Amino acid sequence: MQAGIQVFCRDLEARRGQVVGKLFRLRPALQTSLVLGPLLLGLITSSGFTPAPARIVWTVPKHASKLVRLKSDLPRSTTMLMKNILLLALFACSLASTEVRAETLPLPANLIGAASDAGESLLVEADAREAYFPLAINFVTQKNQAFCGVASSVMVLNAIGVPAPTVPEYDPYTTFTQDNLLDARSEQVIPVETIKKQGMTLDELGGLLALQPLQIEIRHAEDSNLEKFRKEARDYLASEGRFVIVNYLRKAMGQEKGGHISPLAAYDVESDRFLILDVARYKYPPVWVTAADLFNAMNTQDSDNNNRTRGYVLIAARP
Amino acid sequence: MQAGIQVFCRDLEARRGQVVGKLFRLRPALQTSLVLGPLLLGLITSSGFTPAPARIVWTVPKHASKLVRLKSDLPRSTTMLMKNILLLALFACSLASTEVRAETLPLPANLIGAASDAGESLLVEADAREAYFPLAINFVTQKNQAFCGVASSVMVLNAIGVPAPTVPEYDPYTTFTQDNLLDARSEQVIPVETIKKQGMTLDELGGLLALQPLQIEIRHAEDSNLEKFRKEARDYLASEGRFVIVNYLRKAMGQEKGGHISPLAAYDVESDRFLILDVARYKYPPVWVTAADLFNAMNTQDSDNNNRTRGYVLIAARP
Repeated sequence: MQAGIQVFCRDLEARRGQVVGKLFRLRPALQTSLVLGPLLLGLITSSGFTPAPARIVWTVPKHASKLVRLKSDLPRSTTMLMKNILLLALFACSLASTEVRAETLPLPANLIGAASDAGESLLVEADAREAYFPLAINFVTQKNQAFCGVASSVMVLNAIGVPAPTVPEYDPYTTFTQDNLLDARSEQVIPVETIKKQGMTLDELGGLLALQPLQIEIRHAEDSNLEKFRKEARDYLASEGRFVIVNYLRKAMGQEKGGHISPLAAYDVESDRFLILDVARYKYPPVWVTAADLFNAMNTQDSDNNNRTRGYVLIAARP
Repeated sequence: MQAGIQVFCRDLEARRGQVVGKLFRLRPALQTSLVLGPLLLGLITSSGFTPAPARIVWTVPKHASKLVRLKSDLPRSTTMLMKNILLLALFACSLASTEVRAETLPLPANLIGAASDAGESLLVEADAREAYFPLAINFVTQKNQAFCGVASSVMVLNAIGVPAPTVPEYDPYTTFTQDNLLDARSEQVIPVETIKKQGMTLDELGGLLALQPLQIEIRHAEDSNLEKFRKEARDYLASEGRFVIVNYLRKAMGQEKGGHISPLAAYDVESDRFLILDVARYKYPPVWVTAADLFNAMNTQDSDNNNRTRGYVLIAARP
């Protein structure tokens, strides 16, 4: 069926002149769709614009509205029907012709991607980035959509160099992985089946980390404030062997869209931004977010935690 | 048995004065070991030095030689025997008392760790580092000891943004993983069972990458030279959408010790060093290596490849 749609679009483009003439005998709505669909598709792909799935959704209606208005000589009574069929045709052609790229979602305007030129400059000039390299060389992707807390913990434990369990495939080398972090002891803090279903809360994350030889301090946003958070997080990120993991609501900082957990890696005082090494690497790149946006995103109620606010965990190796 | 050894060492340290007196009735070799072993262990651990398994092997003989020579009043005829037993005792005590840390192997003097202060400075000043951030945010650990080529390919493909297969756990997001990279087509280039047994050669790596929409150029070191490699690799690392994967013999650059594959991420002209993002993250940190050391390590014959030399692969996204 996909091949059929592609041929359909390409043939129409090639025989555009002839087709427009012949189509006047079809119902107007169908006429418009068959002609405008491929034309718009040609426009989109020739401009080099390769829409990610999310982009298609808002791009199509925008362009469709403009084009439908242009064709004002067609019967008005069928305008709405035309528009809907056009949308369908465009969407179908776009999906058929556009590659599915290994791209992450687009970022909202308030976030700066770490791999962008601006993001790169921020890291180079950041004054508190002691945490960056130990974390970067241990950066992992959460192994499923509920394991962000597990992935974040693994990164910090490996960054600190906490004695790790064995890994059969790496024998004799040891390291923390998302497969060996959870054991009989962690099951008492939070069962692995619970994590798989609904992830973990800030308190459960703290409890999990507290099983390791670390100094852990859990801070709910409601018990802190922007200034206190900024100071504490910055101090930790500037010190060797100290790390910060944040638990926040993506939607509150413009992302899609639920509760999430990831480690912080650096702070830049000039822009007042923190670098989050987002462990959902298939979904978002790491981002620089302002302290205010991040605190607001942490200062959200977690219905999985009796509506206590989310927040952050301060982690230090035991002396 | 481990607990027994620990008690043995600690008790001797506590009663050192008495023990030395009593031991004179035992065979001299055993005397020395029982006394020197714990003494040396105390020295090592109190200095904060926590030996990784590899360090123990060279540290022990070094210290043992010095101490054995100090005790020149003991019978010379038993010196060699004493030394061997001492080595055994030290090794046993060290293993028993030293935590197994999630640490990587120590680096030889010619390599600079990426997460060290020196390594950090090199990245900040490096002039060719366009490849660094796209790779760093996709940095992975090879999933078993033979998958370095697979892990390296996954990193580069994700860094470029090549259309990726689906991942059931990440639906609807797509990304390359070490589980979905290999398929029916790659089986024709190199069967997965072969990779699991013996990894892959430079040519097999190039063949695997050539299945993707990329421009691939395979360079065996014997067909290149230091100047050519340095220029080509630097140019690629300074350009967007271009990457370099190297295949080299670890031993030739001072590491342990076989053939390996990993991506390059940056080049610093002042120190003439390249940054290798080593995918055996449980074993070694990323390192800055001189162009000469790297080329020499690539200019080694691969018995798995009809004794052709190893080398590098230049990768660019198709325009």
